[in-house]
Amino acid sequence: PRFALVQQEGDKTFLAVLGGDPLYMPAMPTGERIELGDGVRLLAPVIPRSKVVAVGRNYAAHAAEFGNDVPTSPMLFLKPNTSVVGPDDPIVLPDWTIEVGYEAELAVVIGKVCKDVSPQNAMAYVLGYTCANDVSARDAQKTDGQWGRAKGFDTSCPLGPWIDTDVNPEDVGVVSRLNGETKQDGRTRDLVFDVPFLVSFVSEAMTLLPGDVILTGTPAGVGLMDAGDRVEVEIEGLGVLSNPVVRRA
Amino acid sequence: PRFALVQQEGDKTFLAVLGGDPLYMPAMPTGERIELGDGVRLLAPVIPRSKVVAVGRNYAAHAAEFGNDVPTSPMLFLKPNTSVVGPDDPIVLPDWTIEVGYEAELAVVIGKVCKDVSPQNAMAYVLGYTCANDVSARDAQKTDGQWGRAKGFDTSCPLGPWIDTDVNPEDVGVVSRLNGETKQDGRTRDLVFDVPFLVSFVSEAMTLLPGDVILTGTPAGVGLMDAGDRVEVEIEGLGVLSNPVVRRA
Repeated sequence: PRFALVQQEGDKTFLAVLGGDPLYMPAMPTGERIELGDGVRLLAPVIPRSKVVAVGRNYAAHAAEFGNDVPTSPMLFLKPNTSVVGPDDPIVLPDWTIEVGYEAELAVVIGKVCKDVSPQNAMAYVLGYTCANDVSARDAQKTDGQWGRAKGFDTSCPLGPWIDTDVNPEDVGVVSRLNGETKQDGRTRDLVFDVPFLVSFVSEAMTLLPGDVILTGTPAGVGLMDAGDRVEVEIEGLGVLSNPVVRRA
Repeated sequence: PRFALVQQEGDKTFLAVLGGDPLYMPAMPTGERIELGDGVRLLAPVIPRSKVVAVGRNYAAHAAEFGNDVPTSPMLFLKPNTSVVGPDDPIVLPDWTIEVGYEAELAVVIGKVCKDVSPQNAMAYVLGYTCANDVSARDAQKTDGQWGRAKGFDTSCPLGPWIDTDVNPEDVGVVSRLNGETKQDGRTRDLVFDVPFLVSFVSEAMTLLPGDVILTGTPAGVGLMDAGDRVEVEIEGLGVLSNPVVRRA
């Protein structure tokens, strides 16, 4: 796998291939340019070296749909790097759950080591944004109490299709579609805790490393999916993350 | 930092220095041998590439001391690799908590990639064991609901002093001491879910990577600690993990 700058030209997408890993060194274009498609595919734009920090109940309307109050401070949980997959990778439903749901989320990708940053300074540590699906086993989420298994299983964290460094996270649309039908349709202006606050809050507990990811919470409209479905997450102005859902034979 | 085999001779401890990282290649002794002490210290024996998976309420007497039932299946949560520190490293109390507790635990260190292993086969994937302190901000644990912050902050996962490959995890003592006074004194025979079951159960959700760690839960007797204290975790036949507690100025 290699890294590349993604360049849109009309309805075509080109990849300007980079040498090395741009998270840890300056972007070094190799001069090679490939059109996306025809045997070329995108992988997850980042596999965190350390962690995916996710935020629960960060849209009031979503908290309400499960009968929960809005938290007074961000409710943090972790997803392991082994849960990350990329565009078009299958979401594999585990044997131990019969209720798996999608959650469209704006994901923040950290660019620089940070600890104890203020909300005012937080955005300097953000590399960019991508789409995330915080896939959740609803039955295990309820019975387990802690969400390590229900939201941490392999393939439960699709990320992609790329990292966009130009998104303004203050007010973008966060949409999910199941088999083409719109299910969630929120906007980040309705986040209970906004991106600068979240980066600061997380950094007051945990050192954030380059490539760590913060999932900012999901808007109302969540539902279940099943084998054979295709689920999409779209962040306005960023792109679409699409994944098929399968069950192991 | 370098890896070494730890060799006890009487009351002296020697380090037989290895080349490379023995998690990823055969142990390669360099011939160099150093006595522990005199400017030589141990670091955390492993920093997981991926995750620390921890198990809540896995001793009935500990579940009862907080008024909780014993779970019907293991309650998993995650601690990030940024929370790991080693022997004698300070546990740094965060500004946002005034109630931080210790939890002595037997830690399982995974040696080989595994996914969907049975309890019968699980032990083949275990490299060895170490002592862990599942440091917990009790106030944030209650108010946050999910434990990502309360049990995931920097320095909340002391591990050490070394990885012991010869421990039989079926019935060893798990002790904590605060300033020399014994606080917890349990035995792993009282684990609700034993080590082979836990490795299997976790692997049915998440791929375990070499260096990943499973904290098996804490026995009854937990309590709080404060700046100036020294907390110790001892696993019978393995060793003692000792850490000072500090608050940032």
